Amino acid sequence: MGEDQELFHGGDLGAARRLFPGAPEPFIDLSTGINPYPYPVPRVAAELFARLPAPADVQALARAAARAYGAPSEAQVVPVPGTQIVLPIVARLAPPGRAAVLSPGYAEHGRAAALAGHKVEAVSRLDDCGDAALVILANPNNPDGRLFARSDLLALAADLRRRGGVLVIDEAFMDVTRPGWSLAPDTAGGNVIVLRSFGKFFGLAGLRLGFAIAAPPLGRKIAAAFGPWAVSGPAIAVGTQALSDTLWIERTCVRLDKSAQRLDAMLADLALPLVGGTSLFRLVQTPAANALFQHLGEAGIWVRAFPENANWLRFGLPGNEAAWKRLKTALVAFW
Amino acid sequence: MGEDQELFHGGDLGAARRLFPGAPEPFIDLSTGINPYPYPVPRVAAELFARLPAPADVQALARAAARAYGAPSEAQVVPVPGTQIVLPIVARLAPPGRAAVLSPGYAEHGRAAALAGHKVEAVSRLDDCGDAALVILANPNNPDGRLFARSDLLALAADLRRRGGVLVIDEAFMDVTRPGWSLAPDTAGGNVIVLRSFGKFFGLAGLRLGFAIAAPPLGRKIAAAFGPWAVSGPAIAVGTQALSDTLWIERTCVRLDKSAQRLDAMLADLALPLVGGTSLFRLVQTPAANALFQHLGEAGIWVRAFPENANWLRFGLPGNEAAWKRLKTALVAFW
Repeated sequence: MGEDQELFHGGDLGAARRLFPGAPEPFIDLSTGINPYPYPVPRVAAELFARLPAPADVQALARAAARAYGAPSEAQVVPVPGTQIVLPIVARLAPPGRAAVLSPGYAEHGRAAALAGHKVEAVSRLDDCGDAALVILANPNNPDGRLFARSDLLALAADLRRRGGVLVIDEAFMDVTRPGWSLAPDTAGGNVIVLRSFGKFFGLAGLRLGFAIAAPPLGRKIAAAFGPWAVSGPAIAVGTQALSDTLWIERTCVRLDKSAQRLDAMLADLALPLVGGTSLFRLVQTPAANALFQHLGEAGIWVRAFPENANWLRFGLPGNEAAWKRLKTALVAFW
Repeated sequence: MGEDQELFHGGDLGAARRLFPGAPEPFIDLSTGINPYPYPVPRVAAELFARLPAPADVQALARAAARAYGAPSEAQVVPVPGTQIVLPIVARLAPPGRAAVLSPGYAEHGRAAALAGHKVEAVSRLDDCGDAALVILANPNNPDGRLFARSDLLALAADLRRRGGVLVIDEAFMDVTRPGWSLAPDTAGGNVIVLRSFGKFFGLAGLRLGFAIAAPPLGRKIAAAFGPWAVSGPAIAVGTQALSDTLWIERTCVRLDKSAQRLDAMLADLALPLVGGTSLFRLVQTPAANALFQHLGEAGIWVRAFPENANWLRFGLPGNEAAWKRLKTALVAFW
């Protein structure tokens, strides 16, 4: 992986340490939108590492995911080893042609569409999708948190359907959004694919687990591309338990909202203008972004800069009081 | 997953229990070629479930795999979440056209080539590959254990290269074959892709880990299809440790060879003619195959039948003395 990609994606403290070799340890990783309070991983039976994942266990996982995400049925849920791995596969389900990718957005969307052979065009509004055969967007959007209304997305899906097109909605951060925005319940129509990420909200990104929610004709094609053993035994076991743990899910939503408010207050105190975000990350816009990125890096705090907008910085949530304190101290020292 | 696929692949005791509801428990699973003496899974740090896999850790895994498999360098090793998931991706690296798939062989090979848009033709000899743009075979072959000589494969690769074609060699069971047969050292030429399975030899199929070994131009395309976080944190940690454990690897080869010899002796005692296999599975051919499959199933022993050859049964290795004893008792009672 090149240096570009290291800066481009978050989550790689190796890159942080190369860039800021003198920074105090431990490095605080605020470069991702991953929940810093992970779901407590239950003891994984040795057997789950050893044997091939059983179809019945995959089905139980799909059932738990359908319930948690509001999919019409478990038959519309395809478990996959991370949503990012499924992007080029779903991009191939649209007829080759123009792909509209909402921008600013998640870099992997355009990359996946190009990989699938589409002519990729960045568009900034749903109305600009024109005659694209494939539209990919994140809802809520990353990094600015923009939300697309269900009615607008359903209208876009209907429009795409008339010309055999496909709408891919990456709901990687939908877990922390108030109910009613997800299109998971609306996937029966046939040309809408909703992607859900397990690792971000549950704080278990290393597990590699995600879901494609789609009507059976598309869902079967996605499943076929992965073959019979897409997801690891540990991911199936941990995922099934966590997605069924409604109490933990509710409490975590509250906890993340509170943490995001705390972060907002801290950024506001320093007069860093908030552009948007979700409860898993906050985006600020300032001409001092690059200087602040350097300053925080030297203080051992790794945040996310954006090649496409030099004035942006994205902050994930600190995971403990020591991290909050170091962030506050570093921010205060900047001005 | 349909009933067909359940019988088609091994490893699903759910299917066994539906077919033989009265069988004594525990069911003994001899339907796969997975080592029944798994590598002892070390305690996986909670952090590896939580954070995104770090590029440096993926690199360490590739290095360990390059050493274990004899690849020219770690730059030629792409870690993937199971070899079966990589098959349609490598099949797409050949120009569209005829794909020759060695038969009898592993069903996923033909499925992957068809998924990638090739016209799939089953061929029984290397000489019959004709003008195919893609050739996929397993070496040693599954289920009959047939070995293809390196010189023949290199000649085929050279022939394919002249017309821009690609040779995919699935070495899923190469770990238990005497050294010198693998084409992993010969991948620098540019159009040979060697696939290695981690789960079978190390007995950790639930971990979902495999490797594509290919020259950088092809390897980069494979890596790009998976994106930056192909393999889970636990798979990276366990895989790196296991692939570096040369003592365990050597001892396991010996242990599996002895177990295979013990199984051969048992089958020979019952006059079941051995067709071939590897030290991870043995294939017998008998007109009584179907009756024996039923008889063993009713005794709680799940072996592998083949839709393409009604006279074949494949036996994996029993994992403990109780299983050996039950197998022997059931076999003796059959005649």
